[in-house]
Amino acid sequence: MNNMLPAELATELSVLLGAEGWRTDDGALEANAQDNSWRHQRPAAVALPTSREQVQALVRACRRHRIALVARGAGTGTTGAAVPLEGSIVLSFARMDRILSIRPGDRCAVVEPGVLNGDLQHALSAHGLFWAPDPSSADICSIGGNLACNAGGPRAVKYGTSRDNVLGLVAVTGSGDIIQCGGAYTKDATGYDLTHLLVGSEGTLALIVEATLKLAALPVAQAGLRVLYRDADAAAQAVSRVMGQPVVPTRLEFMDARSLQLLRLNGADVADAGAMLLIEADGDHDTLPYLLQALATAAEGDGMLALDVAMEGAAREKLWAARKALSPALRSVAPGKINEDVVVPVSRIPELVAGVQALAREHDLTIVTFGHAGNGNLHVNILYHPDDADENARAHAALPKIFALTLALEGTLSGEHGIGLAKRDFMAQAFTPETLAAMRAIKAALDPDGILNPGKVLPTAACPRPAAAVTAGSTIDGNHRARP
Amino acid sequence: MNNMLPAELATELSVLLGAEGWRTDDGALEANAQDNSWRHQRPAAVALPTSREQVQALVRACRRHRIALVARGAGTGTTGAAVPLEGSIVLSFARMDRILSIRPGDRCAVVEPGVLNGDLQHALSAHGLFWAPDPSSADICSIGGNLACNAGGPRAVKYGTSRDNVLGLVAVTGSGDIIQCGGAYTKDATGYDLTHLLVGSEGTLALIVEATLKLAALPVAQAGLRVLYRDADAAAQAVSRVMGQPVVPTRLEFMDARSLQLLRLNGADVADAGAMLLIEADGDHDTLPYLLQALATAAEGDGMLALDVAMEGAAREKLWAARKALSPALRSVAPGKINEDVVVPVSRIPELVAGVQALAREHDLTIVTFGHAGNGNLHVNILYHPDDADENARAHAALPKIFALTLALEGTLSGEHGIGLAKRDFMAQAFTPETLAAMRAIKAALDPDGILNPGKVLPTAACPRPAAAVTAGSTIDGNHRARP
Repeated sequence: MNNMLPAELATELSVLLGAEGWRTDDGALEANAQDNSWRHQRPAAVALPTSREQVQALVRACRRHRIALVARGAGTGTTGAAVPLEGSIVLSFARMDRILSIRPGDRCAVVEPGVLNGDLQHALSAHGLFWAPDPSSADICSIGGNLACNAGGPRAVKYGTSRDNVLGLVAVTGSGDIIQCGGAYTKDATGYDLTHLLVGSEGTLALIVEATLKLAALPVAQAGLRVLYRDADAAAQAVSRVMGQPVVPTRLEFMDARSLQLLRLNGADVADAGAMLLIEADGDHDTLPYLLQALATAAEGDGMLALDVAMEGAAREKLWAARKALSPALRSVAPGKINEDVVVPVSRIPELVAGVQALAREHDLTIVTFGHAGNGNLHVNILYHPDDADENARAHAALPKIFALTLALEGTLSGEHGIGLAKRDFMAQAFTPETLAAMRAIKAALDPDGILNPGKVLPTAACPRPAAAVTAGSTIDGNHRARP
Repeated sequence: MNNMLPAELATELSVLLGAEGWRTDDGALEANAQDNSWRHQRPAAVALPTSREQVQALVRACRRHRIALVARGAGTGTTGAAVPLEGSIVLSFARMDRILSIRPGDRCAVVEPGVLNGDLQHALSAHGLFWAPDPSSADICSIGGNLACNAGGPRAVKYGTSRDNVLGLVAVTGSGDIIQCGGAYTKDATGYDLTHLLVGSEGTLALIVEATLKLAALPVAQAGLRVLYRDADAAAQAVSRVMGQPVVPTRLEFMDARSLQLLRLNGADVADAGAMLLIEADGDHDTLPYLLQALATAAEGDGMLALDVAMEGAAREKLWAARKALSPALRSVAPGKINEDVVVPVSRIPELVAGVQALAREHDLTIVTFGHAGNGNLHVNILYHPDDADENARAHAALPKIFALTLALEGTLSGEHGIGLAKRDFMAQAFTPETLAAMRAIKAALDPDGILNPGKVLPTAACPRPAAAVTAGSTIDGNHRARP
C-alpha cells in the first residue's frame, strides 16, 4: 500500500522515524485499520513518532504533499474517528506513552497522549489521586483518545468529562505549528481558550502531544443505593430531584424496563420493575452515611417501589454487578448492536425513554436504554441480527428517528463517544448552517489544507480544501466488518 | 460625535433601534466611555438592542461600513475590555436583561446577557440554587460581562469559573451569523466546543445574546477556619495539603504579611503573623463538622501558629470581615492601585509571594498580595500615589517584572479579570508566536473584518484586518482618568 504515497514523502518519513517508527508492513497496516465502530480501511502507512518534534515534522511533510494524517490512540473509539482514509497515514501515539510528571501539590499530571487511562490511574492511586474520565474501556484506552473524543463515563456526573479535567495542552496544528495553552493551574482568563476547543475535536484541528490533566483526590469510602420504580417517568422524576439537591452523586445510572428484563433473563438478581436507578456517593466514613441519606431522601417519591442501601465491599460490588452484566446480556439478544450515546436535558428523560420504546414498537426492534442519567446521557442500544436483511434495514431506519427525537427534546447527538464518521451526517440536523459554517471556519483556521483527519466530525462540505487523499474517493463509510 | 459615523449607517441604526436604542447624546456617550480600568474614550454612538435580531442587524451594518463594535455589559471590568475605541459604536446589553427561564429540574437557567449577576442569584435563591461565579462586583456586574471575561471569585475553587458554569450559548459572530452551541445538558461530545471558546474572548469573536448557565444547589450550611502561619511558605504548603485531600473547600483565601499589617493598622482584630488562610466549607448540619475537621487537619502542619473555627452566623461574618476590609484598607496606603490577578501553580505560591516582596523592596513600593490561593490566583496590588511622578514610574516599572516572575513560575497573566487593553501587550510573553498566530487565525475565522472589539486581548498585530475606526488612530491606551 506504501506505493500510494509519493516516494519522496515515504523516504523522508522513513528517515525521520526509523524502522520502528515508519511501518508499511501488513501487520501494522491491519492493526491500525479499524476502531470499535468496526469500520475498516487500511492506511498507506503507520507513523509512530516518539517526540513532538517528530510529530511536527510529520505534519509539515504531509502538508507539503497534501496527504491526510489520521491520529490514533488505542483504537477503542466507537465512531470511526480513528479509522484511516484510503491513502492516508495513521499517526499512532503508541510510542509517546510517558507519564512526564505527577504533581500532587498542584493536583495535576503531565502526560504524553499515548499513556493508557488505566496505567495513569494506577500510577496516580499511589498518590491518593485519580483522573475523572472512566469510560468502560479505561484499562485499554489512551488519554489522547479520551481527550480527542471528550470521553466521559459514569463518574462524570460528579467529576466531569475529559474536557472538564484538562488544564493545558501542547499540540501541533494542521499548519505544522506547535501551540501551547493553559498549564498547571485551575483558573485562566488569558486569551482564547484553545485547550477546551481541542478537546473533542477528534484530531481534526491539532494533534495533542502533551496534556496537563486536572486530578481529584481519591475518596476514602464509597457506597450505593439501588432504587426500583414503577416506570421510567417516576425514575426520571427522581433523577431531577437527586440532581436538584446539594449532594452530588458520584454516579447516577438509569436502566429501563427492557434492561431489567434482560438482566433477569440472564439470571441476574433484579426484581421486576419499570425502571431502576443505581446511585453512588463517595466521601469518608464519617460523612458517607449522611450523604447516602440525602440521596435516598431525594430518590424517594411517587412511584418508588423499593430502595436498597449497599455499603462498601461485597454489597457494593453486587449492586454494580447488574450494571456490568448488562453489556454482555445485550449480546444474548442479538449479535448486532447500534450503541448511541444521546444526551437530553434531565427533565426530558421520560419523553426520550417513551419515544424510544415507541420507535422500537414501530420498527419491531428490541431497543434497550440505560446509562448516565445524572448527565441526561443515555445509551440507546438497538439490537439486531446483521444477517437478517430486513431487521438490519429496520434497525438502520430507526437510528435517524432516535436522533430526531433527541434533538426535538432539546438534546444532542453525543455525550461521550463523539461524532467521527458514524454521526457526521446527522450534524446538519443538530446545528444550524451558520453554526456549522463557524466550525468549518475554525477548522480552516487551524488546518488550512485540511490534512488532519478529513471527513470526520463535520459533514462532507466541512472539509474546506480536501486533501488529495480524500478527493481520491475514500470508501470507508460503507466498509463495515462483522464483529467477531 | 455622531458625525464620526457614516450618515447612512447612523440613519439605518437609528431606524433599526429607535430613540431608546440609538443614543448619541452626551449623557449616553459619557456613561459608556469607561470601565473600572479608568481608561476613558467616548464612542461615536451607543446602541441598545432588545433582541438577537437587532444585534445581528447591527453587526451586519457595522461590517458593511467597517465600523468597530464594542460590547458592553455593566462596565465593571478592570482591563479596558469594554472601553470604546474612537469612532466606534458601543453595543450595550443593558436592555437585554431578561431571565428567560429557570429550570430547577435541569439545574440550569437561560438568560440574556444584560441580566445582573446579583439579580440572577436573587431569583435563583427562591429555587435553592445559585450560579457559581461570585466576583466582588456581583451585585452590579452582568452575566454577559462575566462570560466575556471568564469571571471567577473565591467560590471558584469548589464550583469553578464562568467558563466552567456555562452549558450553551447563542451568539452573533463578527460575520453577522447567529450561532448556537450547547444546551440544557451537562455532557457534550458533539462537534467543536464553541461555547467554551467564546467565554473569555471579551467580545472579540462573537456577541453572546443568550446563555444557558449551569447551576448548583445552595448548601444548607457554611462554616470557616482562620489559620495563621509563620510565613507565606508555611501557608502555601498548607494550601497544597488542603487541595490534595478529598474535601474541596468552598473558598481558600490567602493574605500575606503586608495584608495583615494593613488590616491591623486599620483596626482589624488580626494577630501578627507571616500569612493567613481563610478556609470555608459548605455542606449540611450533619456533615459540616466532619468537613471542617478534614480541612483543619490538612491546614495543620509546620509553621502553623493558630487556628480558629468559626461556625455559621456572626462568627463566620466576623471571620470574613477581615477579607472584606482589605480593599478599603488598601486605599489608606495610597490612592493609586494596580491590581493584577496573576495565576501560578499552587506549589509556586511561596516563590511568587517572595518574588513580589523582593520587587517591592527593589522598587521601593508597597505591594500587598492576597487572593484565591486554592486556584493559585493571587491579587498583587501595587499601591502608589499617581501624583508622585517618581513613585508612579516605579510602580509601572515593577508591573512587567511581576508578569515576568509569574510566567517564570509556570503561571499566566490573568485568572479572572481578563486581558483587555491592560495586559494585551504582555500576551507575547505569555504565549509563543505560533500560539498567538493560532488565536489570530480563530479571530479571523469568526470576525473576518475585525469589527468586534478590535485591539483587545491580542497584541496589536492580532487585528487581522483592522476596522476603519481602528486605523483612524485610537488614543485610548494612554487616556487614563484619575479615580475619584
